Amino acid sequence: MSDETSTPLGIDRRALARSLSQVVRASVDATLQDAEVSHSAAPRIGVTGPPGVGKSSLVARLARHRVERVAPLAVIAIDPTSPNSRGSLLGDRIRMDTVADDPRIYIRSLASGQTQDGLSDNLPEVLATIDGFGFAEIIIETVGVGQSEYAIRQLADVELLVLMPGSGDVVQAMKAGIIETADVIVVNKADLPGAEATANDLRSVLGRRRARSSPPIVLVRHDDDKGLHELSGMIDDALAKSVRSGGELERRCRFNRYRVHMLAVRRLSEVLGSLPASRFAEHPAIVYRDLLTRLIESPRGRG
Amino acid sequence: MSDETSTPLGIDRRALARSLSQVVRASVDATLQDAEVSHSAAPRIGVTGPPGVGKSSLVARLARHRVERVAPLAVIAIDPTSPNSRGSLLGDRIRMDTVADDPRIYIRSLASGQTQDGLSDNLPEVLATIDGFGFAEIIIETVGVGQSEYAIRQLADVELLVLMPGSGDVVQAMKAGIIETADVIVVNKADLPGAEATANDLRSVLGRRRARSSPPIVLVRHDDDKGLHELSGMIDDALAKSVRSGGELERRCRFNRYRVHMLAVRRLSEVLGSLPASRFAEHPAIVYRDLLTRLIESPRGRG
Repeated sequence: MSDETSTPLGIDRRALARSLSQVVRASVDATLQDAEVSHSAAPRIGVTGPPGVGKSSLVARLARHRVERVAPLAVIAIDPTSPNSRGSLLGDRIRMDTVADDPRIYIRSLASGQTQDGLSDNLPEVLATIDGFGFAEIIIETVGVGQSEYAIRQLADVELLVLMPGSGDVVQAMKAGIIETADVIVVNKADLPGAEATANDLRSVLGRRRARSSPPIVLVRHDDDKGLHELSGMIDDALAKSVRSGGELERRCRFNRYRVHMLAVRRLSEVLGSLPASRFAEHPAIVYRDLLTRLIESPRGRG
Repeated sequence: MSDETSTPLGIDRRALARSLSQVVRASVDATLQDAEVSHSAAPRIGVTGPPGVGKSSLVARLARHRVERVAPLAVIAIDPTSPNSRGSLLGDRIRMDTVADDPRIYIRSLASGQTQDGLSDNLPEVLATIDGFGFAEIIIETVGVGQSEYAIRQLADVELLVLMPGSGDVVQAMKAGIIETADVIVVNKADLPGAEATANDLRSVLGRRRARSSPPIVLVRHDDDKGLHELSGMIDDALAKSVRSGGELERRCRFNRYRVHMLAVRRLSEVLGSLPASRFAEHPAIVYRDLLTRLIESPRGRG
């Protein structure tokens, strides 16, 4: 049966989907019980940038381009969560339809957490699971709203910042400090007017603010793949540099630090959710101590 | 000496600034030791919206307008933090210069946390401190990037969503689910073309998606205070409704739940920061357990 669902590249898509569904639903306790440490993590490309700059379309094009050399390839797309529906919105995913049929590409969308950093609360677990299935590369598309850049740096080997011509994005990216951490900056939708001016703005901002060497800037047009090829080459360079600078152990420690942090943050939310609202009428210091005590009592230990 | 620095309305600005500086720097342990529970919290107005829509200018105008009736008034402005400088950027604050000279208005800007929800990690403590100084109202301006809307609802009594004509903000706000939780929606910069169209888009989106009654929508122009007056009236209505629906105890519990949550999240970061990177080479479940054990050991208890 697994023969029927496995791709030419040996990824059992059905088994992977099943594993991921379990991982996404699992409590912190269950997650810790099953936690596996993969020692062969695929290179990870993080894609950030303000909403509306065309991240999803760019990721789809990039995946189609890179999969010719780097396969199989996984795409994780974080979707904003609506606080009412508590589900992720699928509008953006429609744009990825063009890659969904490629047996060498696996796409999974995840709902962003409500109170956290704009990534999905269980993203580290999802990545660890995907690593176990032998992918050659993973592209992670973030919601791209301010706080996710810090987190993505902990998880990804290379960070792309996607902007578009005009609309003050450069100023906003500067203000949010994103510009300082990106490995490659993409001016997307570069067929729109003002693309070169935006690139020049970026260059002058980077020239002024940066101590270390500036990231390369690339213009990607909708009607031409030249920029896309350039971008892909820059990603290869940045990945090579990242491997040289960090080393596998440093990379794993950084990843696990974030993973353990997220697990503790999730457990905190679980415990907070189990306390009745009336408890919070007490003095903060008392509730805080009670919260920590409950935090350390595993549900298993109590049951 | 305190006579010299107190305003006509009796706010000792120097003492307040001193208290806030202490609160902002304090460790979680010190914060818990000194935690006071104010039983006379001022009404809080939260202002969210995407970057670039003119939140700071609107808040300044709103403060000038409301302070004629509601004084003294405090403005807390959350600034994006640059990951390199670790300081907040002061560009936006310049626009608030016009209110900075009014002795009835106290302005304080706070740096947003790096890994959290786009608010300042110690915002609950800052609000509790301000409450102790007898303000009549507090306006909180968020960074406005996706995740802060959830948090601001826990802290504020009324939430304004600020958008501007065109630029896909409506779609993005819809996607992020912000539109569903706002009490009042402002189309700012309404002297720009497309303001009425944006308001109509909002009305049709809200008509389709909402079960409960839709929030009012108001257009605020730069060159005319009519919309601003309307907005202020809508805020009064929303505040009155909020008081009727929740009650003081429910409000305090909601505030304290968020406060305790943030304290635990901050403590988690403190402990994580104290662990050497090499610890994270171990199995996540082992590091996780160690983390929780350290979390509950107060620094005082160990010292």
